[in-house]
Amino acid sequence: MIETPVIMLNVKAYSESMGAKGLELARACERVAESTGVSIALCPQQTELALVAKEVSIPVLAQHAEAFAPGAHTGYVVLEAVKAAGATGTLVNHSEHRMKLADIEALVARAKELGLCTVVCTNNITTSRACAVFEPDFIAVEPPELIGTGIPVSKAEPEVVEKSVKAVKELSPSTKVLCGAGIGTAEDVRAALELGADGVLLASGVVKAANQEEVLLSLARGAL
Amino acid sequence: MIETPVIMLNVKAYSESMGAKGLELARACERVAESTGVSIALCPQQTELALVAKEVSIPVLAQHAEAFAPGAHTGYVVLEAVKAAGATGTLVNHSEHRMKLADIEALVARAKELGLCTVVCTNNITTSRACAVFEPDFIAVEPPELIGTGIPVSKAEPEVVEKSVKAVKELSPSTKVLCGAGIGTAEDVRAALELGADGVLLASGVVKAANQEEVLLSLARGAL
Amino acid sequence: MIETPVIMLNVKAYSESMGAKGLELARACERVAESTGVSIALCPQQTELALVAKEVSIPVLAQHAEAFAPGAHTGYVVLEAVKAAGATGTLVNHSEHRMKLADIEALVARAKELGLCTVVCTNNITTSRACAVFEPDFIAVEPPELIGTGIPVSKAEPEVVEKSVKAVKELSPSTKVLCGAGIGTAEDVRAALELGADGVLLASGVVKAANQEEVLLSLARGAL
Amino acid sequence: MIETPVIMLNVKAYSESMGAKGLELARACERVAESTGVSIALCPQQTELALVAKEVSIPVLAQHAEAFAPGAHTGYVVLEAVKAAGATGTLVNHSEHRMKLADIEALVARAKELGLCTVVCTNNITTSRACAVFEPDFIAVEPPELIGTGIPVSKAEPEVVEKSVKAVKELSPSTKVLCGAGIGTAEDVRAALELGADGVLLASGVVKAANQEEVLLSLARGAL
Repeated sequence: MIETPVIMLNVKAYSESMGAKGLELARACERVAESTGVSIALCPQQTELALVAKEVSIPVLAQHAEAFAPGAHTGYVVLEAVKAAGATGTLVNHSEHRMKLADIEALVARAKELGLCTVVCTNNITTSRACAVFEPDFIAVEPPELIGTGIPVSKAEPEVVEKSVKAVKELSPSTKVLCGAGIGTAEDVRAALELGADGVLLASGVVKAANQEEVLLSLARGAL
Repeated sequence: MIETPVIMLNVKAYSESMGAKGLELARACERVAESTGVSIALCPQQTELALVAKEVSIPVLAQHAEAFAPGAHTGYVVLEAVKAAGATGTLVNHSEHRMKLADIEALVARAKELGLCTVVCTNNITTSRACAVFEPDFIAVEPPELIGTGIPVSKAEPEVVEKSVKAVKELSPSTKVLCGAGIGTAEDVRAALELGADGVLLASGVVKAANQEEVLLSLARGAL
Repeated sequence: MIETPVIMLNVKAYSESMGAKGLELARACERVAESTGVSIALCPQQTELALVAKEVSIPVLAQHAEAFAPGAHTGYVVLEAVKAAGATGTLVNHSEHRMKLADIEALVARAKELGLCTVVCTNNITTSRACAVFEPDFIAVEPPELIGTGIPVSKAEPEVVEKSVKAVKELSPSTKVLCGAGIGTAEDVRAALELGADGVLLASGVVKAANQEEVLLSLARGAL
Repeated sequence: MIETPVIMLNVKAYSESMGAKGLELARACERVAESTGVSIALCPQQTELALVAKEVSIPVLAQHAEAFAPGAHTGYVVLEAVKAAGATGTLVNHSEHRMKLADIEALVARAKELGLCTVVCTNNITTSRACAVFEPDFIAVEPPELIGTGIPVSKAEPEVVEKSVKAVKELSPSTKVLCGAGIGTAEDVRAALELGADGVLLASGVVKAANQEEVLLSLARGAL
């Protein structure tokens, strides 16, 4: 559903990506995707998922969803709501929103039934292997010590990327691997793809940039 | 910000209140509020908050929000995002999403700074008193054993409503009290208001109804 | 460290296994282990771990431990405290105390460094495979729907046991597999061992029994 | 049950307070209490609660307990287990183990039924007031920004202590107030008592000291 190589942007709960700014950022992603032909996917604020999915044509994902079925779960986002919002899928187990093992398994299985895409975040090679057992669409490897640092994993620990790709494909050949944590430049994107990754997952590098669209454009060129 | 007496509808994560159905339910709330002149407030799916707030003119609230500031909090809803979505406020500490005491205090204080309305849910007279210390806009008393039963607290335990109203007003005269759990008919609404409540908080009684708008209309008439 | 086949008894937070009763149950386990020669391991109340480990000679395990290092963590049990208490290891990710994936991985790795035994609980074949990636000492498969029912997984879903054993050994040949949920009789133990399990993990079947020692003795005979 | 003024020592999950060291620290507390006549209460490692309670004659408290009744709650400590361990009560809602509002209320009520003492930790004047509604035996005010700093709240924010004492007594005259966060010297203890506190709650100031008993002795003299 999401073409690769992909640049996946998680806007987190940053103030620079809310309301009018959030919608403008979504449109910037759409423009860059259209002008470069590079696949860009966006994880907007949870509260803006339905609105953003309606406003832009690029794939939109939730930042998090629960493993349980629709029902009396005040304040929680279930997969059916993600789908009803017009989104393509969801991030799962982000380092800022870790999930229980049994819930990750159930969530990935349920998403498959609903035709939703899952991007499971992991923190090292071993947890990447464990999640490969669930055969999600994507695994995004993000060493937690590098998140938000501007030091890309592809540079700091290139072997983590290479070994993760290998480990994941061994247990789940169809799962694609994203390189997360510290991605900020076209060079970082290129390095990630050369190490075997199918794309990157990033956040502050774009959201906190003075000129978000310019950075996005530069990153997209790194994926060409 | 929210006029009382109010009928507050929490659509939870029910499948009957998502996507097109969610939007239609929001419009039904708006129509009934307009035709009867009764104050109706709506808590849509978290993922539809910005969209629904944009589409209808009645007050819209989040079902839950976190106590922390905007930042790197993937998958969480902060108050600034609630405000950016065009919402009026948020439910706090719903029985299906209980919060830590320190977080309730911080969240209510922060909401006041942002000009957002808080509706703190409590489970008995003692916790209602404790939350009155925080001086939120609303306290919604919902004995957990009655939630979803169709047995209104105003009938099953009328003294809980009366004593809660008294206990809350004693510590925070400006806080309004909603009667939750088991509300389903015009008579339940009327009984709640007669016991001193400033409105009702309900969910399944409307969301699960065969004709949602008809039930809303009937409930609104109970508040006239 | 723990000989197999093993009967592992988790006393949970049951009132029948606290204080004087808890100590008496521990001594009953010790007597049965000595008289039958069958390996019995015990998970006492968390608050009684050091006391029970001091009083009996059979292996004693914590019911739960956290993944983090010793420090300012009021009210939490770290692995170093488990070791200092004289215990042999810990249950991990019990169905009543599920853990985050990243924490299970970190906890199992840390336990190996400390020479502590880990018994990771899982709910189905897929999560058993995922946990096998961490190469713990034991994996205890407990379909949640059978816990506390008295219906043994070895009877209700024998293929879950067989396939779990196979799936686990494939990824981690050294990991032993326990059969949990619903075990109550010598026959259940025998069936589990015949399906390839290295022992059983049980709780209410013994703790709630009128004569705990008699049931233990019967179970032990099933392992001969 | 616990005489005041009291010096309450929470050993947290520090490595300096486990196993043989934990027992030696407990005995040091007992010796200082006996030699000075000052009331000293101890919160040992959760795993050592029953053992320490058996070995020393001073009041011993759990660091944390859950609000629910005994039952199938693997790895959790219930109040009945605290009592069965021979402990006098429990810390509640420590800043490193915050609890949900509804659980604090239920836990304090349950502890009263069981004759157990509760020490509810709070982070500011407002949450202290809210917890006073539950009428626990003690409220320990610990501004989180001072915990572990060695800067006592009695010095950094004396008005927090004075106002907390006043606010608590207003809603619950029988509740005693402890001064937490940053206590390390006899002078800090004296200042806390002069500000109206009934004792102090401390941790690292003793546990991390080169000579734990000497520091305890000095603190006790501050309470004379």
